[in-house]
Amino acid sequence: MGSSVIEKPLLAALSGRRVSPPPVWLMRQAGRYLPEYRAVRARARDFLELCYTPDLAVEVTLQPLRRFPLDAAILFSDILVVPHALGAELRFVEGEGPRLEPVFDRAGLARLGAERLHERLGPVYETVRRLRRALPDRVTLIGFAGAPWTLAAYLVEGRGSKEFLRPRVLARRDSALFGALVDLLTESVIEFLSAQVVAGAEALQLFDSWAGVLPESELRRWCLEPARRIVATLRARHPEVPILVFPRGVGACLRLFATEVGAQGLSLDTGVPMAWAAAELGGPSGPTLQGNLDPVALLGPEDRLLEEARAILLAAASRPHIFNLGHGVLPETPPERVAALTRYLKSGGE
Amino acid sequence: MGSSVIEKPLLAALSGRRVSPPPVWLMRQAGRYLPEYRAVRARARDFLELCYTPDLAVEVTLQPLRRFPLDAAILFSDILVVPHALGAELRFVEGEGPRLEPVFDRAGLARLGAERLHERLGPVYETVRRLRRALPDRVTLIGFAGAPWTLAAYLVEGRGSKEFLRPRVLARRDSALFGALVDLLTESVIEFLSAQVVAGAEALQLFDSWAGVLPESELRRWCLEPARRIVATLRARHPEVPILVFPRGVGACLRLFATEVGAQGLSLDTGVPMAWAAAELGGPSGPTLQGNLDPVALLGPEDRLLEEARAILLAAASRPHIFNLGHGVLPETPPERVAALTRYLKSGGE
Repeated sequence: MGSSVIEKPLLAALSGRRVSPPPVWLMRQAGRYLPEYRAVRARARDFLELCYTPDLAVEVTLQPLRRFPLDAAILFSDILVVPHALGAELRFVEGEGPRLEPVFDRAGLARLGAERLHERLGPVYETVRRLRRALPDRVTLIGFAGAPWTLAAYLVEGRGSKEFLRPRVLARRDSALFGALVDLLTESVIEFLSAQVVAGAEALQLFDSWAGVLPESELRRWCLEPARRIVATLRARHPEVPILVFPRGVGACLRLFATEVGAQGLSLDTGVPMAWAAAELGGPSGPTLQGNLDPVALLGPEDRLLEEARAILLAAASRPHIFNLGHGVLPETPPERVAALTRYLKSGGE
Repeated sequence: MGSSVIEKPLLAALSGRRVSPPPVWLMRQAGRYLPEYRAVRARARDFLELCYTPDLAVEVTLQPLRRFPLDAAILFSDILVVPHALGAELRFVEGEGPRLEPVFDRAGLARLGAERLHERLGPVYETVRRLRRALPDRVTLIGFAGAPWTLAAYLVEGRGSKEFLRPRVLARRDSALFGALVDLLTESVIEFLSAQVVAGAEALQLFDSWAGVLPESELRRWCLEPARRIVATLRARHPEVPILVFPRGVGACLRLFATEVGAQGLSLDTGVPMAWAAAELGGPSGPTLQGNLDPVALLGPEDRLLEEARAILLAAASRPHIFNLGHGVLPETPPERVAALTRYLKSGGE
């Protein structure tokens, strides 16, 4: 009171106001496309050590902010730290992605437990604490977690997949078992995100990367309901911290997430036409829309890149909007394209 | 004239009429889940030989019709026979899917040509001719092709992929080259489908299996425009033969395919809520909707399976509808589940 507090643009947008130019950050803005990231990555034995070493995780989180005029930093971590903290064996195979010990029966579920969740995730909270102190005033610190369905899908499949058939079959053949797994993950995600807020996260994003493989009835049960529960519990505990949900690939079912989850923000994947989203997803009282430039546009010519960014700005102009990609920055992305994009956005898209 | 001609239920539905109970067929209804398919498959050296040997391809096409009350047979073949007939090397690696010699430059494009298209695809036309003679009166023979974007994606990537990044990048970095490839494929698909009609196909389906990885602007250029051209040319040449398009995974962009392509039928993937599609995709004058039961439902309990089938019947009741899956029958599917589903549908869903 008295001293002038400048509201952070990203938080302003998530409070339902149109901010001009809109705040911008990019999913996977810290990552392999940056040479300075690769240098730090080389200092860690493996990817998980990078996630669990606050010195290194803080450094890579901050790297893109030194280069580009971004309005948010997202904690550098991985969605699979939650299953890992629940006791699932996890390793990242170079060039092939994650491998987990698959959970397909009650014995597999019984091996998981939340007893040591906070202890194991302590280094992540420490990273959040340090980031909050290190970030400039205008930059919002975003914490995140994988959504229960997506985490359960990796746990049951044991790895990444195009179709995630094993979890989809298990969810139907033994919905009690699958439901118990999703419940454990839902509770753990709530505790994990809550601890990130206590450590200093100012906004949260829930990544449901594989929601798109489910039909509506299964989506309601395994994605929408857990998201609603997570959002309601966190909003009750931390009413000042807005939440973004990212149900990737759900198409027309985005309407359910816009109207039934209660999150302040809805992140759109590449396939969603922003004009459709702005018109159909709740109107001016609906959630703030985030997105949704094709990450591949950063690998093409600059004029097309800026043209597509401009089309998104125009289509979202009637709504509170956070500019982002529709998926993560690709490792092959030239950093100068990210520079050109963010410069363009900060110039008001002219 | 004079003799009573019974109209085939599938063609009636595609002419825009509601048929009760709706006609039913299943994508990949001929396939590995049937023991009699596996027996025939074992007689061919490889999967391509199965596609190119009319005796075998006719037999596996007819197999599901001997077991289940289906209203259509779809030619047994593969979408990649068109690139193969254009000169691309192609082989199917057991358990890993197709491998093609990748096309990434003008030299690669120059190796492809339509000169021998019909000669190489002759066995496919012969299969269509024999099927048309062999099929019962009520059953419609569906011909098909992969859509140009999906075929180009396989050609540029050289194999299946989660994301098909190589073609997405090439389409932006060298849109002239990529456009020439898509044009060649568009012309070839038109000639291929047209020849299938001449050989006896009574309806056609265009499979754009990987349309869902593109943002709207790219989708319009590489999927919507070619589909419009294919449909317009074929409708002019063969006005009596209806066409179904299947742009898988495009979510809200289905509206473009419902209103701008001119096809009589629109096939919906698993992720599309049928109630949304029935309300939003063109109303009573829009295309006949096809779909869209989750194939995984056939691997779960029978009561849930029939409940979901019933929900689709109810949601589509206001529109001309063809019952189908939202994706192909899975190899792990118990044939008795398909029997239960089709019996239920033929009983009027009661």
